[in-house]
Amino acid sequence: MKTNNLYLITDVENYTPHIGRLVSMMNYVRWSTLDEVEDLNVQHLDYLHDAHSNSIGGLLMHIAAVEASYQESTLGLNSFKGPHSEELRIALDLAKQARTRIKRHGVDHYLRILAAVRSKTLHEFASRDDRWLDEQTPFWDGRPANNYFKWFHVFEDELNHRGQIRWLKLRRKFTFSPITASTCSPSASC
Amino acid sequence: MKTNNLYLITDVENYTPHIGRLVSMMNYVRWSTLDEVEDLNVQHLDYLHDAHSNSIGGLLMHIAAVEASYQESTLGLNSFKGPHSEELRIALDLAKQARTRIKRHGVDHYLRILAAVRSKTLHEFASRDDRWLDEQTPFWDGRPANNYFKWFHVFEDELNHRGQIRWLKLRRKFTFSPITASTCSPSASC
Repeated sequence: MKTNNLYLITDVENYTPHIGRLVSMMNYVRWSTLDEVEDLNVQHLDYLHDAHSNSIGGLLMHIAAVEASYQESTLGLNSFKGPHSEELRIALDLAKQARTRIKRHGVDHYLRILAAVRSKTLHEFASRDDRWLDEQTPFWDGRPANNYFKWFHVFEDELNHRGQIRWLKLRRKFTFSPITASTCSPSASC
Repeated sequence: MKTNNLYLITDVENYTPHIGRLVSMMNYVRWSTLDEVEDLNVQHLDYLHDAHSNSIGGLLMHIAAVEASYQESTLGLNSFKGPHSEELRIALDLAKQARTRIKRHGVDHYLRILAAVRSKTLHEFASRDDRWLDEQTPFWDGRPANNYFKWFHVFEDELNHRGQIRWLKLRRKFTFSPITASTCSPSASC
């Protein structure tokens, strides 16, 4: 992804002023998530710290799923159709099913899905304006939320899980010895 | 804290438009952090999951310390003076010293410090405007960052650690039996 202006929350070409700042924040958050995971192999991505823990792979799929879910509710997209819809649906709530079924993928699998979902968001944002960002509907507990809050929530949830990814990633250093290509199964991209 | 408009990222009285939205986001993030920790006792706040883990208390002090640090660098305040300066300084980098020295406090201790630091930020923001938010200086790796990014970083770091607090908080359910007042030491607020 482009990392020009990575540390500037500012106007972004093709977007209205407040959407541009939202996009700036989402860009930085995504860059920082990818920066944590790009060097991880399948064993790292599937690592479950304990019976209640999510894997890093599961968290990455969840991040994509939350974004897809807000595409449906705020942008009118049908984002749970297509080749990865089942994985996205499972990852939306990080329950046991996500722990047992989202695994054995190399990092590229997650990165491709994250990028595909994000690409649709950015495309849709370009045809909206700051008045759309201000539009409100009843939300959690029936209290009003505007579209800015809903998309802020998409990235604040990602940051929450990035914190957990960092925590888990540090533990793999104590748990695993370095993985080399020869220890990877032929079907997995390590 | 006030929770009116908790789910609206919008104009906030006394602040310019972009600062108002930044304040909206910081308010929600802080509310969500406090919501996680308000019921925790000293044993929960001091819990160290392993030799490399930070305690929830340490993370809360770190959140206050990061904000204090950006008050110094962007608002010209001298935020590491006063009764809690030593704790804040130790918590700024979450190293071994933070793990061993920040403990035996009830949650009110952390909440008071977080509120005191935040109060100064909000006071200072009221006398700045969106042009100040756009001001740039060389930052990480010498690349330019504006004040909006620096304060976005303050709350994105808090969210990162809130994710870790949630993870740790869930583990205390498996680790501790419920604590009652009678099991607390007289010096600790449980």
